[in-house]
Amino acid sequence: MLIDRIGKLKAGFAEEFDGHVIANEINMLYLTGFLGAAVMFVPNEGESILYVYGVNYEGARTKAKNCRVERVKRDEEAFKKLADQIKAMKLKTLCFDSMSFQVYQKFKNALERSVSLEGKSEYIWSLRRIKDDEELKRMRKAAELTAAGMQRACDVVKLGIKEIEVAAEIEYEMRKYGSYGVAFDTIVASGPHSAYPHGGCCERRLAKGDLVVIDIGATYMNYRSDMTRTVVIGKASRKQKKIYDVVKEAQEAAFQRIRDGVKAARPDADARSLIEEAGYGDYFVHGLGHGVGLEVHEQPVLNTSSKDILKSGNVVTDEPGVYIVGFGGFRIEDTVLVRKGKAERLTKGLYVLET
Amino acid sequence: MLIDRIGKLKAGFAEEFDGHVIANEINMLYLTGFLGAAVMFVPNEGESILYVYGVNYEGARTKAKNCRVERVKRDEEAFKKLADQIKAMKLKTLCFDSMSFQVYQKFKNALERSVSLEGKSEYIWSLRRIKDDEELKRMRKAAELTAAGMQRACDVVKLGIKEIEVAAEIEYEMRKYGSYGVAFDTIVASGPHSAYPHGGCCERRLAKGDLVVIDIGATYMNYRSDMTRTVVIGKASRKQKKIYDVVKEAQEAAFQRIRDGVKAARPDADARSLIEEAGYGDYFVHGLGHGVGLEVHEQPVLNTSSKDILKSGNVVTDEPGVYIVGFGGFRIEDTVLVRKGKAERLTKGLYVLET
Repeated sequence: MLIDRIGKLKAGFAEEFDGHVIANEINMLYLTGFLGAAVMFVPNEGESILYVYGVNYEGARTKAKNCRVERVKRDEEAFKKLADQIKAMKLKTLCFDSMSFQVYQKFKNALERSVSLEGKSEYIWSLRRIKDDEELKRMRKAAELTAAGMQRACDVVKLGIKEIEVAAEIEYEMRKYGSYGVAFDTIVASGPHSAYPHGGCCERRLAKGDLVVIDIGATYMNYRSDMTRTVVIGKASRKQKKIYDVVKEAQEAAFQRIRDGVKAARPDADARSLIEEAGYGDYFVHGLGHGVGLEVHEQPVLNTSSKDILKSGNVVTDEPGVYIVGFGGFRIEDTVLVRKGKAERLTKGLYVLET
Repeated sequence: MLIDRIGKLKAGFAEEFDGHVIANEINMLYLTGFLGAAVMFVPNEGESILYVYGVNYEGARTKAKNCRVERVKRDEEAFKKLADQIKAMKLKTLCFDSMSFQVYQKFKNALERSVSLEGKSEYIWSLRRIKDDEELKRMRKAAELTAAGMQRACDVVKLGIKEIEVAAEIEYEMRKYGSYGVAFDTIVASGPHSAYPHGGCCERRLAKGDLVVIDIGATYMNYRSDMTRTVVIGKASRKQKKIYDVVKEAQEAAFQRIRDGVKAARPDADARSLIEEAGYGDYFVHGLGHGVGLEVHEQPVLNTSSKDILKSGNVVTDEPGVYIVGFGGFRIEDTVLVRKGKAERLTKGLYVLET
């Protein structure tokens, strides 16, 4: 799988550029299988070069595929070294994925004045957005581990337990089943905290009638998953039940819409109109979802202003929510695989409000 | 504590600039206590403004201190909104902490041509480098949790256990004692993996005679810690014992050197020369250490080319290592508080090679 990626990248940019600088470490991981390089260069013609400082040089030599690994010495700068290489190759038109302004300035100064340098993240994203079989295998495993963590959360959530104690149990369970770590900081946001989409996880003890938003993800061999459930401590009030059902219905409506060829703004619109009709439109304060893969937030974006078109092989979240300060919050989220026909939930089950 | 930070920042930049744009989310957290804003503006005179999208607006209104929180609507862009504000204020000279090149370009285009915009991360770093009492309280707690995790690692490390199972026990222990999460991906790198400084943590089972590098950190209320120990499964060989002792001696020598007023390159040089004298100089492939705080890698930097001067209130790591591919690796690391006199180890103990 890995072996095709650099070829596909070249096929993307080669008509427009002489070479592609990869400065984002996750993009380097995607192309070479190695995390920890300083910068990578993919020329239109010839061998790709991965520049690595001493600390990770031996690791790169062992793990990095489809490129030559070049050591950057302690007193050298990787971008300066790359600029020299580009000058030696007499290349004229370059693009790069992403770079801080400060690094851009240094790099630009080190290049010949006649070399053009353009920010173009779309070549790499057009690849990363479509998961191949090996990636999907890892993402299915990450999703399975995440669901195991959520099951544990449902088992331990009870009156008096602290948010961080619930997180401890979730993460331990995911680890025991083989998780390589968390995909992002675990959220267990209870009571007033649940009213904020990123409600955190701290030492608050769960109280009777609390809504608890549990948003978790496991990582498996660099791939991530993302899943949210909302539960109530004890019996749900009529209003809690009503809003939960609206959010659940919105999540399902969006799920039914998600498939190859659909505008990414459409499932958001479907979920949003259901929530609006129920009178909670002002409280759905974020987009429906985002891509997931090597990173927990990546392309495509599923919100009202998205220009993306969903494609088979995208993995995205479907996560409508309603957040009312002073009352509490609700979110239901699955990680979903886009296909030609109906989408597939990678995370699923446990749609239970009362515990 | 928080209340002084914006004032101190202004005192830093006000002679040179009309205002400071803060685009780094951790810097915004440092200044306001809130994580999740899009961008912040600190004008030389008048109120600071925190721009926040709807998803985090209510959270910011509740938590962000010492600034006005302004909502960025779904169809607005935060940097565009900020540019309009700056134009309305007729400001001419701005600096910013850090920004991607793509964001810089958009922001620069949205500003009047006559407005100058300069990258200057030093104002904020001159503050963040010196930890105040509240920060130190949190870092001491993070270090204590980390040491508890390391104790657990020493208790469970044994023949046949998987690296990720050791990680599960470490992280669960840290969580149980009150950790808010991991400061970075837990490293349990055994046998051949130990020869790479970032040796990861996967499904390998520990074997007899393995070196195991355990590099872990807990987080407490946004502050981090960082600690490494190296153990051997079973009885250490003479060579293992010898190299361990050299690394331990180097770590102690650097620790004795670390204090207010010392060049940050000095403790690195002290550790390095001991390791070189023992014949392992080529295998100490990274710098001695780095600052720790809200991030696990921050300023100051302790390596051969560092221009930094250590100051009382810096919190840094002291972590020499020797990595021999085909033999194994060693690293001993503590998080250390720089003081006027002798430094203070925030992590400590468990300097035991054999388990």
